[in-house]
Amino acid sequence: MSRAPLSVRLAKAIRARREALEMSQEAFADLIGVHRTYYGAVERGKQNLTLSSIERIADGLEVSVASLFVSADKLP
Amino acid sequence: MSRAPLSVRLAKAIRARREALEMSQEAFADLIGVHRTYYGAVERGKQNLTLSSIERIADGLEVSVASLFVSADKLP
Repeated sequence: MSRAPLSVRLAKAIRARREALEMSQEAFADLIGVHRTYYGAVERGKQNLTLSSIERIADGLEVSVASLFVSADKLP
Repeated sequence: MSRAPLSVRLAKAIRARREALEMSQEAFADLIGVHRTYYGAVERGKQNLTLSSIERIADGLEVSVASLFVSADKLP
């Protein structure tokens, strides 16, 4: 079975961490100052994120960018 | 002393890996199919890279995106 694209695995890692913090998508989008619709697309892996956007998300999630990608690497 | 921005630390990690492979900037840019001028800016941390660009670079360097960020995390 082929692996999901990295964008999708990163999205899943972001979602998992946001859920671990018990924040809704909407509350988290507000926290990091992005539009809720945009953030929904982020968690579906539908955005080709820039490094600065990934960093903003990681900061909001209180993790490093490296740790998000390490988590993404562990996903199928 | 404050830490360099993540974009700059990522650029340094990319450069270090490319040099470890003993490839010139020009040869590496050609390998991954990007313009040499653009790639030079990447290694100076002057581009706000997208995930797909970071992935293309990591593939060319034969490392994971996660490992590039882990290397970047170790830099000052």
